[in-house]
Amino acid sequence: MSRMNDTPIITLTTDFGLADAYVGAMKGIMLDIASDARLVDVTHQIASQDVQETAYVLYTVYRFFPSDTVHLVVVDPGVGSARRPIAARTPCGSFVGPDNGVFSYVMAEQPVGAVVELANPRYRRAQISQTFHGRDIFAPAAAHLATGIPIHQLGPSVSDPVTLPLPRLRVSPGIVNGDVLHIDHFGNVVTSIGRLVWEAEMLMLEPAFRRTGAPQASFRADEASVIAAGREIQGVHRTYAEVEPGGTLALVGSTGHLEIAMREGSGATALGLQVGDPVELRW
Amino acid sequence: MSRMNDTPIITLTTDFGLADAYVGAMKGIMLDIASDARLVDVTHQIASQDVQETAYVLYTVYRFFPSDTVHLVVVDPGVGSARRPIAARTPCGSFVGPDNGVFSYVMAEQPVGAVVELANPRYRRAQISQTFHGRDIFAPAAAHLATGIPIHQLGPSVSDPVTLPLPRLRVSPGIVNGDVLHIDHFGNVVTSIGRLVWEAEMLMLEPAFRRTGAPQASFRADEASVIAAGREIQGVHRTYAEVEPGGTLALVGSTGHLEIAMREGSGATALGLQVGDPVELRW
Amino acid sequence: MSRMNDTPIITLTTDFGLADAYVGAMKGIMLDIASDARLVDVTHQIASQDVQETAYVLYTVYRFFPSDTVHLVVVDPGVGSARRPIAARTPCGSFVGPDNGVFSYVMAEQPVGAVVELANPRYRRAQISQTFHGRDIFAPAAAHLATGIPIHQLGPSVSDPVTLPLPRLRVSPGIVNGDVLHIDHFGNVVTSIGRLVWEAEMLMLEPAFRRTGAPQASFRADEASVIAAGREIQGVHRTYAEVEPGGTLALVGSTGHLEIAMREGSGATALGLQVGDPVELRW
Repeated sequence: MSRMNDTPIITLTTDFGLADAYVGAMKGIMLDIASDARLVDVTHQIASQDVQETAYVLYTVYRFFPSDTVHLVVVDPGVGSARRPIAARTPCGSFVGPDNGVFSYVMAEQPVGAVVELANPRYRRAQISQTFHGRDIFAPAAAHLATGIPIHQLGPSVSDPVTLPLPRLRVSPGIVNGDVLHIDHFGNVVTSIGRLVWEAEMLMLEPAFRRTGAPQASFRADEASVIAAGREIQGVHRTYAEVEPGGTLALVGSTGHLEIAMREGSGATALGLQVGDPVELRW
Repeated sequence: MSRMNDTPIITLTTDFGLADAYVGAMKGIMLDIASDARLVDVTHQIASQDVQETAYVLYTVYRFFPSDTVHLVVVDPGVGSARRPIAARTPCGSFVGPDNGVFSYVMAEQPVGAVVELANPRYRRAQISQTFHGRDIFAPAAAHLATGIPIHQLGPSVSDPVTLPLPRLRVSPGIVNGDVLHIDHFGNVVTSIGRLVWEAEMLMLEPAFRRTGAPQASFRADEASVIAAGREIQGVHRTYAEVEPGGTLALVGSTGHLEIAMREGSGATALGLQVGDPVELRW
Repeated sequence: MSRMNDTPIITLTTDFGLADAYVGAMKGIMLDIASDARLVDVTHQIASQDVQETAYVLYTVYRFFPSDTVHLVVVDPGVGSARRPIAARTPCGSFVGPDNGVFSYVMAEQPVGAVVELANPRYRRAQISQTFHGRDIFAPAAAHLATGIPIHQLGPSVSDPVTLPLPRLRVSPGIVNGDVLHIDHFGNVVTSIGRLVWEAEMLMLEPAFRRTGAPQASFRADEASVIAAGREIQGVHRTYAEVEPGGTLALVGSTGHLEIAMREGSGATALGLQVGDPVELRW
């Protein structure tokens, strides 16, 4: 293999913000261990200690990286408690972080080849701060994985990683019920109703997370409507440009999930929608 | 050539913010195609869908990168509409993004060797989301350009790229009229009056954008004054330190444009200035 | 040495924010000079022109990088004045920035091998903006250092770099007095009382900055108390998980300093503490 293909990528997802040097400290330690690693920030602006949001953000992005990428996640309200530090290997990347459910949505759609507890002191820093495992346990583990250390050298197998309940997606004849899963920077409202795939003029509904096994449904998008925040929105669109600026619409977003949006505005603000609010799709 | 010089740079300028994984998804895709690319964030905090601000920010930065750099720009209110996705080649970098004017200020000062529409499906992702061309069209195109794919392989030539009106700069004897172009993080007010260049104690005014062909003017900086927000500011300075802390001043900023600033404070807040407000320079 | 180990790292710490292209301009210039450099952002969100905060943030992070790292710091209220641009070499990294005290806390714990003024025009840009030395003086110097240019080629020696007063740390029998040094993204209140090191069940107090020569003290952490904002907090803990969610506690933070925190909340908000407020540790 050429050198280029050997360059490992490590992504970073945290709730550390960008004003302190916590992220910098982790990067220094990783580059000291894996000097050739490519470090890619996913985000450091997860809402403080929000494990569900972390699981969602990671779910939207890991699939776009090469399969030998190591995804480092440090959103860790239980740091210093008995919660385990873990690493997991899948066919679509390796994952390092606290065992608190942050990998739930990935694990729901990827077969997990191995999960281990990061117990081997050889791959930790000599002194462990009980308030910053990101620096002293997770960053070294991610860097060692990137250099090619086999995952089983990091510690013993874990058979029961913590998993969050998957987002709600209930399919009945002519009705799909879900929840608001995420509100993005533009105010687009992402729901748990997905993955939606166009086939000719029909919309096919596949399970949002492959292993949920939800039944497949299909419907004509222009005859469907979405009920949210006490309002009915007609049709499911392909793009913002199908309505006028300022218009509210439902569409299939870039993650394949049903979204509620406003063209050149914030759908979340316009409709007063928040994470967890119910959304119904009818046809 | 040595390997070092072969490492292509791709810069990123978007309005995606840093809280979602949209930027991360584009980076994953680019590193999958061009594993050796150097990714440099310019900013992801362009005001949502603000094409003029994007054109300005790009104009201030592209000149400092090596000439083989690819500048990826995704500020794209018309995503999913008929607006074309394009790439442009200049002697000072290549540019990839929507055909909505974001490259206007660069094209006004650089000869454009080629502009093409990103129509070749070979250099796009197989499935195109109509809400995220950044991920499915622009990022792959930028990465392929960085690996050395000739620009004309990306699609057919475009002869009429969209251009924004250039910022106002009207030169009369003893008076130059312009507008507020940008307000930076510190509250410095950047105007369209530039480029100003010191020659001995004289200030020479060159056109802000080379191809506007505005006439050259020269004046003694200490005898000039700036009128903005109904206020007259005496003299054009070289640096903040020439006034007391808290003092308001006009000076030649780091982009070569006339700026209005407050030493150790915000000129924009002090004077209540906003983008688009008129500014007059007299001498 | 292998090529991997030759890759120099340059870190960046500024108050430029992320919305403008100032950071991008510095990166373009550095990669033009040192195309193989690894650029790592520490933060660009230092409070505008806050030299003390800069000194603190740099102090918390430089130690985690390889010893050949170049740390570029641009928080520069005196840009364009007579303040000198400098570079300093220590066994734990090189440092480039304005001579205004930003390196004080590093220099207080590292022997300084050389300090030079960045006066050699060969290692500056040809035109120097008097408002952006970061781009025209500091970034080129950092990049040239990263390529292996000896520090003494950058300019003449400086024997009297500016130093900030070190944070207060007064040790009396049974009492240590200090100040709030920093409040982080989570609202954790970092004090100047450090470095605290656990030895068995005893806490050893070492000088926060090695060369201050403050006396060493030791005490039982569970018999100690912390007085801040008119409130007494019992005990010094090892981790947040030792109190209930919402509980206020004192603990040894990841920098080794005494911190005041709230589990799953903001200690700074709960107690109304600000940088500079006095904190007392008793036992």
